[in-house]
Amino acid sequence: MQTFFDPKSVAVIGVPSRTGVGSFNNVETMLRYGYKGRIYPINPKADEICGLKAYPSVLDIPEPAELAVISVGRDRVMPLFQQCIQIGIKRVVIISQGFSDADQIGTDLQEQIVSLAKENGVRIVGPNTMGLMNNYNRFTTGFVDLPVPEKFSPVSLIAQTGYIQIASVDYSYNGFGKAIDIGNTSDVDFADAIEYFGEDPETEVIAIHMEGMKRGQTFLEIASGVTLKKPIVVLKTGRSRFGAQAALSHTGSLVGEDAVFDAAFEMAGVIRARDTIDFKDALKALACFGEMAGPNIAVITVTGAGGIMAIDVCEEEGLKLAKLPQGLSEKLREGVPEWLHVGNPIDIWPIGMIGGDYPGAVDTALTALLQSPDVDGIVLIIPAMNSPLHLDIADLSGVVSEVRNKVGNKKPIAAFLYADEEVEYPEKYEAVDAVGSFASAEQCVRALSVCYQYHKSRTRQLPSVREFGIDSKRADILLEKGRKDKALTGEDALGLLEAYGIPVAKGIIAKNWNGLETAAKKLEYPLVLKLAGSRFLHKSEWGGVKTGIATIDDLRVAFHEMSENVRRVDPTAEIECFQLQEQAMGRELLLGLKRDPQFGHVIACGMGGIYTEVFRDVSRAIVPIDCSGAEKMIKSLKMYPLLKGVRGEAPADVGTLLDILERLSYLALSVGDISELDVNPLMVSENGCTAVDGRILW
Amino acid sequence: MQTFFDPKSVAVIGVPSRTGVGSFNNVETMLRYGYKGRIYPINPKADEICGLKAYPSVLDIPEPAELAVISVGRDRVMPLFQQCIQIGIKRVVIISQGFSDADQIGTDLQEQIVSLAKENGVRIVGPNTMGLMNNYNRFTTGFVDLPVPEKFSPVSLIAQTGYIQIASVDYSYNGFGKAIDIGNTSDVDFADAIEYFGEDPETEVIAIHMEGMKRGQTFLEIASGVTLKKPIVVLKTGRSRFGAQAALSHTGSLVGEDAVFDAAFEMAGVIRARDTIDFKDALKALACFGEMAGPNIAVITVTGAGGIMAIDVCEEEGLKLAKLPQGLSEKLREGVPEWLHVGNPIDIWPIGMIGGDYPGAVDTALTALLQSPDVDGIVLIIPAMNSPLHLDIADLSGVVSEVRNKVGNKKPIAAFLYADEEVEYPEKYEAVDAVGSFASAEQCVRALSVCYQYHKSRTRQLPSVREFGIDSKRADILLEKGRKDKALTGEDALGLLEAYGIPVAKGIIAKNWNGLETAAKKLEYPLVLKLAGSRFLHKSEWGGVKTGIATIDDLRVAFHEMSENVRRVDPTAEIECFQLQEQAMGRELLLGLKRDPQFGHVIACGMGGIYTEVFRDVSRAIVPIDCSGAEKMIKSLKMYPLLKGVRGEAPADVGTLLDILERLSYLALSVGDISELDVNPLMVSENGCTAVDGRILW
Repeated sequence: MQTFFDPKSVAVIGVPSRTGVGSFNNVETMLRYGYKGRIYPINPKADEICGLKAYPSVLDIPEPAELAVISVGRDRVMPLFQQCIQIGIKRVVIISQGFSDADQIGTDLQEQIVSLAKENGVRIVGPNTMGLMNNYNRFTTGFVDLPVPEKFSPVSLIAQTGYIQIASVDYSYNGFGKAIDIGNTSDVDFADAIEYFGEDPETEVIAIHMEGMKRGQTFLEIASGVTLKKPIVVLKTGRSRFGAQAALSHTGSLVGEDAVFDAAFEMAGVIRARDTIDFKDALKALACFGEMAGPNIAVITVTGAGGIMAIDVCEEEGLKLAKLPQGLSEKLREGVPEWLHVGNPIDIWPIGMIGGDYPGAVDTALTALLQSPDVDGIVLIIPAMNSPLHLDIADLSGVVSEVRNKVGNKKPIAAFLYADEEVEYPEKYEAVDAVGSFASAEQCVRALSVCYQYHKSRTRQLPSVREFGIDSKRADILLEKGRKDKALTGEDALGLLEAYGIPVAKGIIAKNWNGLETAAKKLEYPLVLKLAGSRFLHKSEWGGVKTGIATIDDLRVAFHEMSENVRRVDPTAEIECFQLQEQAMGRELLLGLKRDPQFGHVIACGMGGIYTEVFRDVSRAIVPIDCSGAEKMIKSLKMYPLLKGVRGEAPADVGTLLDILERLSYLALSVGDISELDVNPLMVSENGCTAVDGRILW
Repeated sequence: MQTFFDPKSVAVIGVPSRTGVGSFNNVETMLRYGYKGRIYPINPKADEICGLKAYPSVLDIPEPAELAVISVGRDRVMPLFQQCIQIGIKRVVIISQGFSDADQIGTDLQEQIVSLAKENGVRIVGPNTMGLMNNYNRFTTGFVDLPVPEKFSPVSLIAQTGYIQIASVDYSYNGFGKAIDIGNTSDVDFADAIEYFGEDPETEVIAIHMEGMKRGQTFLEIASGVTLKKPIVVLKTGRSRFGAQAALSHTGSLVGEDAVFDAAFEMAGVIRARDTIDFKDALKALACFGEMAGPNIAVITVTGAGGIMAIDVCEEEGLKLAKLPQGLSEKLREGVPEWLHVGNPIDIWPIGMIGGDYPGAVDTALTALLQSPDVDGIVLIIPAMNSPLHLDIADLSGVVSEVRNKVGNKKPIAAFLYADEEVEYPEKYEAVDAVGSFASAEQCVRALSVCYQYHKSRTRQLPSVREFGIDSKRADILLEKGRKDKALTGEDALGLLEAYGIPVAKGIIAKNWNGLETAAKKLEYPLVLKLAGSRFLHKSEWGGVKTGIATIDDLRVAFHEMSENVRRVDPTAEIECFQLQEQAMGRELLLGLKRDPQFGHVIACGMGGIYTEVFRDVSRAIVPIDCSGAEKMIKSLKMYPLLKGVRGEAPADVGTLLDILERLSYLALSVGDISELDVNPLMVSENGCTAVDGRILW
């Protein structure tokens, strides 16, 4: 990867001979950007391009360049790529469009190029890309004349578009330090780039623009490791139905269910931004502050109204208002009227103005807050004014700097410097360690929240997978059957769950009334009678479930009714067998596994019954999970209070529920080829949990 | 109000004799801001202030100034205010803090000042305010030296803080045209200011910063009228628990439940912004575009990735992707490769680049979209670059202007002009009619969404209240009892509901077993037995509810068990009477009325039973509502699909439910003194709705 960002020599294939307006000449843009390496323009019709000797073919250049950049119509890419291989070029950026982003012909062409590359140990960025941008050595492969930034942030970007390189300042303060557009991701992908930036000393924060994903499990593995030392922020787009469709045609990525991405980011410790602003602010916050060690923030504000805006967001983001350090309130109240309230937020204006020393009041407050172990981060809401009348109060960057030096630690200070549009104060404040400015009070709080999120992510425990004893003999028999039939249902599905230690409702299959009568003797009332067999997958449509059977007489009535129901729906349908089951009580949950094409098995848990579709109260995690992962899933459900018990109800047996989730995760690990598994419902009560019905598909 | 914003003469009371740094001399700031009226500085210790003759007292000035501005310690305000009255000043701004924002003494002082004002026909802005700002005549009463804006927006601000005047450019593009800080709102309040700006020809958009509210019903009335001709956007803060507490101490406002404000804004057609950015963008959108006539937007983008970001938000905001006009796709595809996809968003880059005429492609697309009746608004995502290499494509404001003139209509065009930080393009684009630029693709879409929201609000139907026939005789008797006891419960509460035409469960009160036996003969099984009487308000704690009574034997068992339950909880408790009721089936809802101190009766409807607390699935509206208001309430419930019927269930009788809500609203209108009313549960099924229990408080 390093060669892509810092090649000593580049062959630019397909560069036009024309320069200037409208030419999109990428040798010209490379030179203007300040690249100092050797450039070999390849153009059969030119002798010289931008003052450099041009070559008719890449075969004619004096050395195998470290990198080739190909920018020609899609049909001409393959032969030129072959020439690159022939001369021994190992890194190629393919700018051209029209591959997997376009149609089947393009997709096939792309696959051929990639196989050829693999055979020859060549790595490709693209196609359909602007390629690389590196501000440390002033290198760009793009055809757009990017402005040369005077300074840039230690944030590196991985994107599925080139536009964010052009819009660099719209997405990161001062623009990105390095950027790669992985385009159609035919070879170099998110995982490669994250791995590189993870080790890159010039990268402090990794920014990702993502539409879709291949090699999801490698992404998880690499990102999980990198987030233990550097923050990763992702702007995942295509989250809406329309957006997902558009993303498909934009880079040909397979776009999975958005909620699964959430689960994947959660697992990998990746922070997800909501939108462009949120992304930009998060990147700045992480670059300025690194992490915030706890959730407790204090607000120093020159406006009560601004303080209220800050704390509204504080609550939404799960941060807390810090307890003010002992004695600070008293100290600030010296010399101000009795009626002046001092709390957190600290409304510093009346204190400073009435007390006569506004900078002093800020100094006092800031010093105490930075020193306090109860405060993890600070929001500073103060005006930054040009007026000569406010010289004494308009710029407190000196005070902030002095306090920072005096106290010494690097607790984050997020500042909203409002008022005049064009002042140099933000830069003066930001010259102080761990001070960053944001465009509103709310954004300051969100910035700190991201840094706390990063702290939690960096210090998170990776899941430690438990081994469970299972009934392998029984499992193997059922798995063989399931693989053969591509499905297990009813008692078979429950059997596999039971073999993995998951409690299931006791049930017996019977073919007729005699069988049911015998079965009923072995079971405890109340019972449930259900149609069984593959003919009746949607039992309720057949009138095929009867609950609350309390006696053998009830059972007889139910048996006759059910037989009649089936005849009514389809007189030709034959009932192979019935399932008679002990009725489990409690609340209905549903559990599930689904093999995601990108991230492997996803485990889901949610509210069951008719509420499933209505409230969509489902939490998901990528397998494997451990007990604390299971707990996180349960606690993130809206229905969680129902499990804890409301209105004096006894709490449900959450311990067993967590165990079941962990076992389900273990099942997915051990039986990798299951494509879908549903436990619906799982009945959960104070007395335990019982899987009542299941369905497993291969 | 006009005098507050445009006084011909101002007495500035309590102005310091000092000027310059640290003086906060508001005569100095007034002069620097450019005020041309007559200024009378009042300071007993100075002869001249800022080159103006100073007067020892307001009694000494040569005319009763049109406005007085008082800025002294709180204890000195009253006597100076009295002098203002004495000389005949009718408008006073009280800058000073320490009134209802501080403590009881301050609150009392404020009340005395207000009564004196009322007696003398004097209007007050403040106390605890920066007062007025008017850029049309360069007037300010503030003590901060505001930068004099070269231009400003036609947006007028009403705030409960002065800080937004200082941070004017952080809250509105180019800053506000006019602003008033109503401070503690002792007299002039939101309603007054909205009424004024509603008629003010210099105000096109009204912006409100709100922490709390008095005179809520007047606000509703006036705002409801104004939003039929001008948009109002509110940034309501203090929405969190902490925020509400802080707001209380900031301006002494009574902060109501945040959800009630939502209902009030909905009723008044006021648009609520989520945060500072949202507020600023909404104000700009409304000032640039006015309204957008429908939800259908089209996106022209130079980046596929940016298009995806836009449409993600499109779906979230309830907007739709417009159908492209007939023939446009074909026209754009002329001369580009077969594989190039043209849809909405229109990815214009490859079309323009490969086709060789990027400005032409934009012209073609924009013309067709502006002309199409299927398109209500357009998002334009294009780069704005400084490089001389991109002179041909970097600035398309000329194309946009030409197309606008050619087509003629004013469909909004929200533009994200990305790339270089300092270019003049945004201004060139914004010089075109109904073009506004925003800082990201997402913000462009949200901007259009606000304009569609305004359209819906401007064209909304005000509720038309139906008259219902009621059983007045029965109602009057029960109302008399309720007012006497401050409460109606059980059969009495249901009786009042029934008198207003709301279907209730049939029930009978009985004192003992004999009574119950007789009652049971008049009712239809299954029955419910409940404890009645004021002793047993929380019946379930007494074991005081038994459902599913199917026979007289069941009833006997229930009667004995319940008597036993009560004895067990409290051997001294005596059961006055029982309520025997026909059991209603269906889904549990709860309905409620609550008299809000600010907005009057609020009607609520939500999911009942144990789900009430867990899902907080409640919708609220301010009384009165009509049928379409009731429908909006029901449809906004998350549980709405359950009422429509899921999984083949029959839909519930929503018609009757709407009727009940309308009748409840009518009840609140007719019986204004009810403080709280609960119907819990209301059972709703396909066969109708039945109020099962109720409680009404005075």
